[in-house]
Amino acid sequence: MGHMAKATLTISSKNYSSWSLRGWLLTKFSGLDFEEIVTAPDDASARAEILLLSSSILVPCLRHEGAVVWDTLAIAEYLNEAMPDAGLLPDDRVQRAHCRSICGEIHSGFTTLRASLPVNLKGHFPGFKIWSRAQADIDRVWSIWRDCLEKSGGPFLFGARRTMADAMYAPVVTRFVTYDVKLEPLLKAYADTIMAMPEMQEWIAAAKDEPAEIEELEVEY
Amino acid sequence: MGHMAKATLTISSKNYSSWSLRGWLLTKFSGLDFEEIVTAPDDASARAEILLLSSSILVPCLRHEGAVVWDTLAIAEYLNEAMPDAGLLPDDRVQRAHCRSICGEIHSGFTTLRASLPVNLKGHFPGFKIWSRAQADIDRVWSIWRDCLEKSGGPFLFGARRTMADAMYAPVVTRFVTYDVKLEPLLKAYADTIMAMPEMQEWIAAAKDEPAEIEELEVEY
Repeated sequence: MGHMAKATLTISSKNYSSWSLRGWLLTKFSGLDFEEIVTAPDDASARAEILLLSSSILVPCLRHEGAVVWDTLAIAEYLNEAMPDAGLLPDDRVQRAHCRSICGEIHSGFTTLRASLPVNLKGHFPGFKIWSRAQADIDRVWSIWRDCLEKSGGPFLFGARRTMADAMYAPVVTRFVTYDVKLEPLLKAYADTIMAMPEMQEWIAAAKDEPAEIEELEVEY
Repeated sequence: MGHMAKATLTISSKNYSSWSLRGWLLTKFSGLDFEEIVTAPDDASARAEILLLSSSILVPCLRHEGAVVWDTLAIAEYLNEAMPDAGLLPDDRVQRAHCRSICGEIHSGFTTLRASLPVNLKGHFPGFKIWSRAQADIDRVWSIWRDCLEKSGGPFLFGARRTMADAMYAPVVTRFVTYDVKLEPLLKAYADTIMAMPEMQEWIAAAKDEPAEIEELEVEY
């Protein structure tokens, strides 16, 4: 049945795939022991997915004790059930509702931000010119983070513990670094906290070692 | 504090808003007693949201005992916690992972389907010509439904009980009716089941009474 096998997480490009980063961070945060399966970066389906040409049905995909979970928020909720001690959601029910709302918002929205500032961990574009519609998405992210950090006191969005929201917003943090988006001190401190996590450093190091370049995701600069 | 007040659900157009329909069905399925607050259809923010010009931060929005929940999947998970007897998720953990995966997929994906076949309950367009990229999204919906119904035996996606997945896919059912998408018998039976739910009939009757027409959401026909 394979139920005794170690959990696996299928991901694609560490340099370009925001969903892979989210799924991987969630699994790391949960403490679940897992094996990474990386799809070849020149795989046509994986490529179509990274380019938003197809629904995200291949990556990230978590397989664990007979369950197959292929959507990032579903992975978050699955891990929250399977590894309750990790505290992927806040303990308080009102905060939990808040956390899930901002996770849902980044999951279904921010299409302009995604399309115009693609995740690219190897890239760095000082003075990058932000398109005004992307700025509206950025303003909304700032407002979400500010609201959380002012209420919780940080260093993470919901306080001392990392929740699913920090994993969901981590690719946005990397976009701000890649495209040189200037942050006010409160938000800069949060971005620095996320970038300094050992898991994030491990992921970024692996991304920098990836040979493949996806031309469509390299911005004009 | 307002904690004693009845729950409220803020929604927008019943004719055009797929997210409003999902949030409303989820709350109905849960059995939570709530009051509907309908934003004016000519409200600029509500309009921008329906037209996908802004993130979905206004509707649907559930307020209940101090919690504010403004994303559809967050509402689903909130209601599942608050009203556990409603069984918004399957009891079996593998099925629960499956249910959440397909809910997540419709929540973040299917952008071509959304844009080219907008929800329009008053509309009916026999012989509507489906654009080939929308057909790829339709094929994926069919494959998701077929997989669920073959495993569960129907009449709902996960068997005898309605889960959050049925609410999440309900607007797709209405699109198939509006744009005359022909379905194989297994899927047609499912679509008929969804359309026949008393809640769905109630919603559609209210949609038909809505005076406002949003020109941008009326397709060329």
